Amino acid sequence: MKKSALQKARAAYQPKLPIVLTGAVQVVEGNPTDSVADQEAIRELFPNTYGLPEIKFEKKSTPSAGKPVNVGVILSGGQAPGGHNVISGLFDGIKKIHRDSRLYGFIMGPGGLVDHKYVELTSQIIDEYRNTGGFDIIGSGRTKLETKEQFDKGLEILKELNISALVIIGGDDSNTNAAILAEYYKAIGAPVQVIGCPKTIDGDLKNEVIETSFGFDTATKVYSEVIGNIQRDCNSAKKYWHFIKLMGRSASHIALECALQTQPNVCIISEEVEAKDMTLQDVVNYVADIVARRAAAGNNFGTVLIPEGLIEFIPAMKKLIAELNDLLAAKADEFAAVETANQRQWIIDNLSADNAKVYESLPHGVARQLSLDRDPHGNVQVSLIETEKLLSEMVGKRLKEMAKEGTYNGKFSPLHHFFGYEGRCADPSNFDADYCYALGFNAACLINAGVTGYMSSVRGLTKPSVQWIAGGIPITMMMNMERRHGAMKPVIQKALVRLDGAPFQKFASKRESWANNTEYVYPGPIQYFGPAEVCDQPTMTLRYEHNA
Amino acid sequence: MKKSALQKARAAYQPKLPIVLTGAVQVVEGNPTDSVADQEAIRELFPNTYGLPEIKFEKKSTPSAGKPVNVGVILSGGQAPGGHNVISGLFDGIKKIHRDSRLYGFIMGPGGLVDHKYVELTSQIIDEYRNTGGFDIIGSGRTKLETKEQFDKGLEILKELNISALVIIGGDDSNTNAAILAEYYKAIGAPVQVIGCPKTIDGDLKNEVIETSFGFDTATKVYSEVIGNIQRDCNSAKKYWHFIKLMGRSASHIALECALQTQPNVCIISEEVEAKDMTLQDVVNYVADIVARRAAAGNNFGTVLIPEGLIEFIPAMKKLIAELNDLLAAKADEFAAVETANQRQWIIDNLSADNAKVYESLPHGVARQLSLDRDPHGNVQVSLIETEKLLSEMVGKRLKEMAKEGTYNGKFSPLHHFFGYEGRCADPSNFDADYCYALGFNAACLINAGVTGYMSSVRGLTKPSVQWIAGGIPITMMMNMERRHGAMKPVIQKALVRLDGAPFQKFASKRESWANNTEYVYPGPIQYFGPAEVCDQPTMTLRYEHNA
Repeated sequence: MKKSALQKARAAYQPKLPIVLTGAVQVVEGNPTDSVADQEAIRELFPNTYGLPEIKFEKKSTPSAGKPVNVGVILSGGQAPGGHNVISGLFDGIKKIHRDSRLYGFIMGPGGLVDHKYVELTSQIIDEYRNTGGFDIIGSGRTKLETKEQFDKGLEILKELNISALVIIGGDDSNTNAAILAEYYKAIGAPVQVIGCPKTIDGDLKNEVIETSFGFDTATKVYSEVIGNIQRDCNSAKKYWHFIKLMGRSASHIALECALQTQPNVCIISEEVEAKDMTLQDVVNYVADIVARRAAAGNNFGTVLIPEGLIEFIPAMKKLIAELNDLLAAKADEFAAVETANQRQWIIDNLSADNAKVYESLPHGVARQLSLDRDPHGNVQVSLIETEKLLSEMVGKRLKEMAKEGTYNGKFSPLHHFFGYEGRCADPSNFDADYCYALGFNAACLINAGVTGYMSSVRGLTKPSVQWIAGGIPITMMMNMERRHGAMKPVIQKALVRLDGAPFQKFASKRESWANNTEYVYPGPIQYFGPAEVCDQPTMTLRYEHNA
Repeated sequence: MKKSALQKARAAYQPKLPIVLTGAVQVVEGNPTDSVADQEAIRELFPNTYGLPEIKFEKKSTPSAGKPVNVGVILSGGQAPGGHNVISGLFDGIKKIHRDSRLYGFIMGPGGLVDHKYVELTSQIIDEYRNTGGFDIIGSGRTKLETKEQFDKGLEILKELNISALVIIGGDDSNTNAAILAEYYKAIGAPVQVIGCPKTIDGDLKNEVIETSFGFDTATKVYSEVIGNIQRDCNSAKKYWHFIKLMGRSASHIALECALQTQPNVCIISEEVEAKDMTLQDVVNYVADIVARRAAAGNNFGTVLIPEGLIEFIPAMKKLIAELNDLLAAKADEFAAVETANQRQWIIDNLSADNAKVYESLPHGVARQLSLDRDPHGNVQVSLIETEKLLSEMVGKRLKEMAKEGTYNGKFSPLHHFFGYEGRCADPSNFDADYCYALGFNAACLINAGVTGYMSSVRGLTKPSVQWIAGGIPITMMMNMERRHGAMKPVIQKALVRLDGAPFQKFASKRESWANNTEYVYPGPIQYFGPAEVCDQPTMTLRYEHNA
């Protein structure tokens, strides 16, 4: 494959390992752990892997001879910058244990394990992918490892390849399944350790013991680069309102981090909208008021950051969507017989009064989308809604009303952007390159320590990477019971934006000033070779959370 | 204003001037010049500024004492990375002539000159903006300087501020107007020189003597960064077709340059579509065939680059739009009275047979857009058409037909992107930072040389910047006569993509391979501090054009 100049220069980068991992390590066990909630239920479901101690690695003066180990690795779910470095760190880690160790990559995600599709990752292959973005080294996929049949089928190939440890690189769901798989193999006495690695650009896999998931740093820096560029354009042309939607359906960490980096005029945080029980119209009015205020000061331009998942956090919209799902499932045939022109009225007539009112308030195009585009399970496809256009259209309507009321006098020209795929496979920042390499290398140490059901943990991330703390966290420790598809399931607690957390508090204390004035910050593109203060800074979220 | 870490580090960058401009310079005059075409007509319109010689600067051993000069500067039209460096180069250049020289910036474009809105640009202000993107130092605008009234009004403030030279930073239209203004002031004996600087990310202001316009380098690098990231995602997930529209309405230089940098599966070049007299359906079939070929090889994913101006280059669409404009103007009242549901049929009935057929072939949403959204002059607003969605929708339809015919068997999931505002105000690359600074500094030398109606020219751009050649080109030399709004006007010839040029030829020789295989290149973000081969390369277009 033809490589860009940057790729060639970057191939030579040697990620900086935590000092503790550079020599021989010894395991220091902490106290037995408990799950964050529902301890009884989780303990019952994980009799063999519940209550394990946290593990911390420390330097050992006398290295002991290691034995060759065969390891399998899986990339699970959406791409995140740095996945290739987790794999190269893992590779170097098991080679350090013994040079005859081997690494197998399962192809296109967890499905590769079940379908026995794999490739041996040699040093030749690994060297092609060091410090690069993407998951293309072995591909990724969204097959969920959940059933006994899958586990048993996977075990066949693991035995065949003499693999004694499996590393699953994924988000909260994939790591939940890694814990279930670890428990299952332990229960049936299968000699396969399972280790997880925390991945997701969304930033919602974090907790007391996992400071951040990898990829969040790079992705938010790419989005902040282009947001900054748009803001500079906005402040030069002074005639557009840019509505910018950002990937991240469940939590608003990405939008919040980008706001902290770029200081836009408006940023909506879904968790706040939900906590304040705001309606869509409340959100629209909030934005329209800022547009009007800026117009009064002669500034008919601005920027609005919108988290992708907003709609699903608005309580009234959630209720509407739930009723629509039920209604269109229960009366599918009747609805199908309604003429297109009459469908809107039919829906309004068949919804409860509250939801009908919400439905009527939506722009016709969006309302139509809610009733037409449905996924294979018959559910409304919220992700297809262009929230950025929905919002700007409703803001435009509201401004017309305000103009009539005499509370707005200005020009409103909206433009729209959606950033997601632009950042998921970017070349990892120095932070993610180092963090991912350390996570992978550390996973090899956990394998060498003989544990299972652990997540690779590297902490102290606001400090220079050589000072990072390495170890392992029992995955069951992060779990609680949640309702999924109608049944209670053990899952890793998803980390939403905490409204009492330092990052949101910082944002909340500044947003009035950012709205009224023009205080844009232009972060520019990720740099790899310059001064440390440009190249090696972690996210603002991490810095505020850890008071660094 | 709060500055990002990169902005602070970048403020210290000292652009590398051509060696010839670092000391005292002397003017070397070439032979008298002729316009590229229509010499008689252009000579007649520019009796005072036609036929001037090209100017080249050479080193002079004995510096002569300069006199203070007051200069005005205008940013005209769309933003392009590096505008601030043109201004800082100009500032440093006139300060070098004499430390009492002064620079005035007219606010929000040419309108600032007419309306007497200006600010003195002191070293304190200039230093805040060195090496930054955007035009926010004084803003930009699209007011066209065309009328005697504007020229006379401008002269008032120029006289008041004792300004003897005006530098207009703009694209082909703005530089055309700079030439007209230079001619007018010369004709009436007003003591104001006018100098132009070649700006536009579109890359269509270039010719035998101007190698490239500034901003093209940075903007195409930003677009190539995100296209590369999307391609890495595409090649990791292996399930989407990304349709990516790129800014640049008149010419396809941006799409071509990005294709050369990233090697997508498909790139449409408007100029080729026009030259081959392709219909929209031809373009759709071309893309659909590649989708089908890749699907047959098991690759249900890919990338398509689309120039923003495509629709207007398709001869059949051009005819349709022309007739629609005439029709909807001539029968405006009749059309207004037609019920919405019947408008489509009314249009089909009223168009000529050929155009009716083209109209009927369009997706309903696009067809509707063509008849509804019209600009203040009553014209169809082609720029509002989401060409990327139009194309993918028609490709999807074509693939369904092919599936029935048995020539396609695959999954087609399109995603859409439009990049434009993300790149116009990016921090200038080292190339643009140097080139722009040199253009501005060189403009000061042209002012010192006493000439008017010249464009600042810096050439030899594929060589290291210290070796660049500096001088001036009479703007009339680049002109020909073209029909604009029904009348023949003198204008700078726009540079479209030449199908016999080296960049297109290179692309054409590779595209079959890029279509069938997956040969994506991932350029990554612009780097400022790394090795020269990463940080200091000019565009592929420049390199191929100059065989470097």
